[in-house]
Amino acid sequence: MKKLTVVICLIFTIHAFSQNDKETLKTIYSQSLTNGKAYNWLDHLSNKIGGRLSGSISAEKAVQYTKSELEKLGLDKVWLQDVMVPKWERGEKEIGYFESSGEKMNVNICALGGSVATPTSGLKAKVIEVKSFEELAALGTKVKGKIVFFNGALNPELIHTFEAYGGCSKQRYAGAYEAGKLGAVGVIVRSLNLRQDDLPHTGSMGYLDLPNNQRVPSAAISTNDSNKLSDALKKDADLEFYFKQSCEQFEDVLSYNVIGEITGSAFPNEYMVVGGHLDSWDLGDGSHDDGAGVVQSMDVIRLLKESGIKPKRTIRVVLFMNEENGLRGGRKYAEEAKRKNENHVFALESDSGGFTPRGFSFDCSDANLDKVLGWEPLFKPYLIHYFEKGYSGADIGPLKNENIVLAGLRPDSQRYFDHHHAANDTFDAVNKRELELGAATMTSLIYLFDKYGTTTINKVKEIKD
Amino acid sequence: MKKLTVVICLIFTIHAFSQNDKETLKTIYSQSLTNGKAYNWLDHLSNKIGGRLSGSISAEKAVQYTKSELEKLGLDKVWLQDVMVPKWERGEKEIGYFESSGEKMNVNICALGGSVATPTSGLKAKVIEVKSFEELAALGTKVKGKIVFFNGALNPELIHTFEAYGGCSKQRYAGAYEAGKLGAVGVIVRSLNLRQDDLPHTGSMGYLDLPNNQRVPSAAISTNDSNKLSDALKKDADLEFYFKQSCEQFEDVLSYNVIGEITGSAFPNEYMVVGGHLDSWDLGDGSHDDGAGVVQSMDVIRLLKESGIKPKRTIRVVLFMNEENGLRGGRKYAEEAKRKNENHVFALESDSGGFTPRGFSFDCSDANLDKVLGWEPLFKPYLIHYFEKGYSGADIGPLKNENIVLAGLRPDSQRYFDHHHAANDTFDAVNKRELELGAATMTSLIYLFDKYGTTTINKVKEIKD
Repeated sequence: MKKLTVVICLIFTIHAFSQNDKETLKTIYSQSLTNGKAYNWLDHLSNKIGGRLSGSISAEKAVQYTKSELEKLGLDKVWLQDVMVPKWERGEKEIGYFESSGEKMNVNICALGGSVATPTSGLKAKVIEVKSFEELAALGTKVKGKIVFFNGALNPELIHTFEAYGGCSKQRYAGAYEAGKLGAVGVIVRSLNLRQDDLPHTGSMGYLDLPNNQRVPSAAISTNDSNKLSDALKKDADLEFYFKQSCEQFEDVLSYNVIGEITGSAFPNEYMVVGGHLDSWDLGDGSHDDGAGVVQSMDVIRLLKESGIKPKRTIRVVLFMNEENGLRGGRKYAEEAKRKNENHVFALESDSGGFTPRGFSFDCSDANLDKVLGWEPLFKPYLIHYFEKGYSGADIGPLKNENIVLAGLRPDSQRYFDHHHAANDTFDAVNKRELELGAATMTSLIYLFDKYGTTTINKVKEIKD
Repeated sequence: MKKLTVVICLIFTIHAFSQNDKETLKTIYSQSLTNGKAYNWLDHLSNKIGGRLSGSISAEKAVQYTKSELEKLGLDKVWLQDVMVPKWERGEKEIGYFESSGEKMNVNICALGGSVATPTSGLKAKVIEVKSFEELAALGTKVKGKIVFFNGALNPELIHTFEAYGGCSKQRYAGAYEAGKLGAVGVIVRSLNLRQDDLPHTGSMGYLDLPNNQRVPSAAISTNDSNKLSDALKKDADLEFYFKQSCEQFEDVLSYNVIGEITGSAFPNEYMVVGGHLDSWDLGDGSHDDGAGVVQSMDVIRLLKESGIKPKRTIRVVLFMNEENGLRGGRKYAEEAKRKNENHVFALESDSGGFTPRGFSFDCSDANLDKVLGWEPLFKPYLIHYFEKGYSGADIGPLKNENIVLAGLRPDSQRYFDHHHAANDTFDAVNKRELELGAATMTSLIYLFDKYGTTTINKVKEIKD
């Protein structure tokens, strides 16, 4: 076998666009706003199927439903990609309360995804409140036998609520790991919600390499109840907190990424992906997270066709399984792409809710961002103004290389965490037009990158013979 | 008396801003998001007082409440300005149905504000559907003895939903006038709502100079029921529609604009106004229209103080009465300003809902818009990007002259008409952060215009002696 490495440097920036592009975007937006399918698909996904936790029956139904809907669109190919996923079940509705000065105060809690159960009769212990991992570390083994209450609150001063979330999410993910190592018997975590309300917000947590005897139950508690508990602790540091949850982890089960494709007319071996994740948490129906991204992605590929666009590159819609508690779908898709030597030049994820789109954040080279900035005037009539470097999406992250353009749709984020992973992430919280504007905005970006191509730097091509 | 007219031409544009401005905006936004009062005030206005139709007891309560809250802020002056307002009452809940092929279909209707009642036993007649005034004119006296059904729908392709509303609102306002002249016996109007749902949306209508015998009852019908009625008419053009409403117009009553003021430190005779309207329709609690604008305006003046800003010009918060069905408050305020020869250099209204702010539209000279565009970088961190010429606000409109800067806050408009004038314009539809971001954005604009001044062109100054 002879191996020849050819280094090709291609640096080109096209800031131009044509009058025709303006008209194409107008067609795309009009199609989406007058004839969009995203909202009806979401209605089915949310109201007929409901919450779609990996490994559940409803996740399986969602796979079958979206596959059959994609098949109706007349794409060149629709298929399922096997993904082994974790299966965790919440069990009975959780109970929580605390007792102070002889009074019992019920609180709204829910098990965090991946947590172990409490003993069947529940768990009762004294509580130590911390607001950071530094505070926890300073306490050391003083937490032994106690329930650690992580009460760090999202910073309301941050305009991008995802930044506020990012500043606190470690509490949820690693709180039980860190507290369990120190001998705590349980963990409760303030819900990652900017609003003061009564809803507990679930989400994934992990024990990593902890031995079983240090794996303590971990639950989220609503923001209102976090405030009440914190106040009560100031008056009575010895109060006792009780909670009971019966969640359980099962063996991994077979599930699927759902994939549909329009084969490119000129460069069929250049792949452009658009996607969201099909799984959701179980408390609501996962309309914003991420039913919205799923149906928008499905509508992108339909809107391209309806708008008379014949892509030069191969466009794939990928509905990823298991973003919430494993990312197995995203990893599997990238592994297979690598194994088949598929050249992915672009991937776009919508996983920030179905709210009014503001723009995109890009994980790509400066040259590709410059290219996007050249298209700004095309987007202005649709009030799309945000084009910044930043995070793209969890599912497409594993596709990362130096040449690919990874993009994340950035909708207005103010309401997102009011619903995120909670019982009110439901269809009624999604506005039809906002959802459709998102789908049109995604379609427009894909149209432009397909037409003008991505900018490739230091492309290393391996020619094998 | 000698009268000397001095023409002073002042044209200057300042694009610059200082590092200090950046910090001041940061302080304003942080104050609003961590320590804002708007949401609590709105809670009281919406949930303790409720819908505030001009001349109602709750409108009077709203006057007293907001006055007393402004008095707590330590302003230089707080007072009430007399305004005589129309008083119209809805009466009993309206009933509507149509009969076709022996079947009775109930529909959701509500009287339009200002409409006359039906006869006590209701009104039943055949229906003629039109989608425009041109269609109505072509029908001419064929509508005699019939109910005219205005079924023009808002255009979903328009990104700015206020443009879609503007394209249809004449149906509601003038439908009864035009149909009554032709001998129709009643009018029903498709609700001015982009969403397909079951809520009828009220709003003002007028009979202008029509004689009493041509003043026919006029009602709004929900979008879903409009579609049903239209479909039924295609099958049975002779179907009969029944509705009953018992609304009544009373004599005008005394009400008030509520005004608070910080006197300017350098130019006390230059006035800058910020306001919203205190009255609302009666079906919901008027949280978006315009409780939001009221509490945001109140918080602007508080945020200026809390952020340590000492305005050079006199800043007035004006809570206008009777925007919805008369505009008496806006007219009275402008009349009094003129009578007292008060030099109003700037006015900002928030009357487009309490949703995430996107920017402002300006009714002002190019020179003043250029000035604002120079401040764009200051607003970018807060995702405020929309600065265009356009409509400002109904209440501040009467202040218009060639020098004043009139501005309207432009929040995201996608959800606005889902709630506008309907029973679901309620507190739960307002997001605290979105409301607070609006208040901070308004405060920031006022801070900048106070600091840098407006640009005056061809200022005619009358010096009397």
